[in-house]
Amino acid sequence: MSDEVILLAHGSGGKLSHDLVERLFLHHFDNPTLLQLDDSAVLPVPGSPDPRAMDRAQAQPGQPVGLRLALTTDSYVISPLFFPGGDIGKLAVCGTVNDLSMSGAHPLWLSAGFIIEEGLPLDDLERIVASMACMAEQAGVQIVTGDTKVVDRGSADRLFINTAGVGVVAPGLEIRGDGVRPGDVVLLSGSIGDHGMTVMTQREGLEFDSPLTSDCAALNGLVSGLLEAVPAGAVHSLRDPTRGGLATALNELATRSGVGIEISETAVPVRDAVRGSCELLGIDPFYVANEGKLVALVDGEAADAALAALRAHPLGHEANIIGKAAADHAGRVVLRTALGARRVLDMLVGEQLPRIC
Amino acid sequence: MSDEVILLAHGSGGKLSHDLVERLFLHHFDNPTLLQLDDSAVLPVPGSPDPRAMDRAQAQPGQPVGLRLALTTDSYVISPLFFPGGDIGKLAVCGTVNDLSMSGAHPLWLSAGFIIEEGLPLDDLERIVASMACMAEQAGVQIVTGDTKVVDRGSADRLFINTAGVGVVAPGLEIRGDGVRPGDVVLLSGSIGDHGMTVMTQREGLEFDSPLTSDCAALNGLVSGLLEAVPAGAVHSLRDPTRGGLATALNELATRSGVGIEISETAVPVRDAVRGSCELLGIDPFYVANEGKLVALVDGEAADAALAALRAHPLGHEANIIGKAAADHAGRVVLRTALGARRVLDMLVGEQLPRIC
Repeated sequence: MSDEVILLAHGSGGKLSHDLVERLFLHHFDNPTLLQLDDSAVLPVPGSPDPRAMDRAQAQPGQPVGLRLALTTDSYVISPLFFPGGDIGKLAVCGTVNDLSMSGAHPLWLSAGFIIEEGLPLDDLERIVASMACMAEQAGVQIVTGDTKVVDRGSADRLFINTAGVGVVAPGLEIRGDGVRPGDVVLLSGSIGDHGMTVMTQREGLEFDSPLTSDCAALNGLVSGLLEAVPAGAVHSLRDPTRGGLATALNELATRSGVGIEISETAVPVRDAVRGSCELLGIDPFYVANEGKLVALVDGEAADAALAALRAHPLGHEANIIGKAAADHAGRVVLRTALGARRVLDMLVGEQLPRIC
Repeated sequence: MSDEVILLAHGSGGKLSHDLVERLFLHHFDNPTLLQLDDSAVLPVPGSPDPRAMDRAQAQPGQPVGLRLALTTDSYVISPLFFPGGDIGKLAVCGTVNDLSMSGAHPLWLSAGFIIEEGLPLDDLERIVASMACMAEQAGVQIVTGDTKVVDRGSADRLFINTAGVGVVAPGLEIRGDGVRPGDVVLLSGSIGDHGMTVMTQREGLEFDSPLTSDCAALNGLVSGLLEAVPAGAVHSLRDPTRGGLATALNELATRSGVGIEISETAVPVRDAVRGSCELLGIDPFYVANEGKLVALVDGEAADAALAALRAHPLGHEANIIGKAAADHAGRVVLRTALGARRVLDMLVGEQLPRIC
């Protein structure tokens, strides 16, 4: 019996979130898939034949090779419901499509669960549903099943949406959080901090000369372009740096893969408006959520092809190689600053921006 | 532009819920799978070979026959979190396993999304997570992926859980809400109203001599027993009568299948404690939620085998044949009362028991 309670920081995506996951969820829901801790669970369908008979060579004896699905889920509790560049519905489609994409899966189907506070204007709900439908069509996925619950006034804050997603993982693909190897290059698909600072400044009522816009976007097209452009097996890990930002995503990869990651501050694009609002609010953009960016850890030999593939896509035209993985300082992320100093970039501790997604 | 707002009754599972689904979700998320309106979406995996090469004969030209998945989701917002016979976690596992089972799918994997109000005691969360793990093991499913969001005090009511579930549908099975045929018998697996009245009396602080207990249970074992006991294709429809109760579930089947359904009041088991609390609160047990019961619409020729199979399972030992489907009064459900009168049993209108699941 303890008198501990849940804090906002348990949902931040940072250190306390990780502690909660390890202590509670991994402890009780003990299974090898969940232990992978990737953005999606990758699941061999029992008894299913291999759809393309490609990876039989890698099969274990007695272990039938077959179709692999990816399954993922996220609940969206963002406030406000509408923001420049998107809304909770668009976010709920993109976020789940992106989690599937980060395991290399081809996203196919989404479920949608709505928890609605009594009194929500029907027009708001309809705008959000229409936005989900539009985004799903753009991303090439179908919303095939759903659920609606309504709770009394004061028991929820207007609207929460859960989406779960199912995709198919092509034979031979092994993209996982523990797959980074020394010598891999770190690619980032574009500027950081746009989503989080857009939502934050909306909430605080701040206005800037160059208005901020969320980067909310579905990354499945960007990922397929990348995978097609490099040799099979060259993409080792993918992450979309959402809650906890780029710093937390890289820390997860460094820890899970047992490698060190060094990145260069000057290589990471940050828009002026994002930098300005971060300075004003005392926030480090490396910890701010993104909803349309990815980091790819790619075999060094494929670096140029990977960068070219990212830049060829509209969502990756500002892509950069921002660093590399090494055997040194395993489990840590080191930032080389603009002034040439080196400092450790920790995982987010505490809560920086609640209800950002 | 309208000034309509969401009401509690939009989440009741009854008439307003159906209107909302048709007007908003079906309108915008327009796809043939969602239009099926079954408890799960049944999805042929593109390009996948048929796992057992059984139903090629039924394939359409140009339509590859393959593996079919079922996908479903539900959010759970029940209050209180703990109740006799279960808790929100057990319910979240059973409810989703049951929705998969009602499409004839073999449930395999669940996702779990937690929306937690800041301040929830960690001990409560752990009890709930442990209960989910225990129920998942009993039901033979794995919780393979998850998500946790924390919202500030007052923005949610302690804890909401979303589960999505994935299962595999055996080749040849076609169990659907529009599958009922005249001549089918209606089987009910046990007593009605136990879950809803347990939660309702807990919430109202009522006490009865014979305490009420929720029937919350995973029905996948009961369904496989049934499917094995009858000839292939004999089970036409399955429903677990949750929100809106038995009356609403039967109305859905009658409407979707274009048949009339007649049931006999005396054949439907209602426990004394449930009947008593229903009378006290002025509630009709036919509209009260169940969480461990099913109705099966089965070819008349297989009636005896189906009944025997249900009764042979611990969760079906009180099963009864409660009525039959006919071509008459298509789309309506008629109740023959204990006194021999006949009355139309409508779909639930309005909200009877909010936050029952």
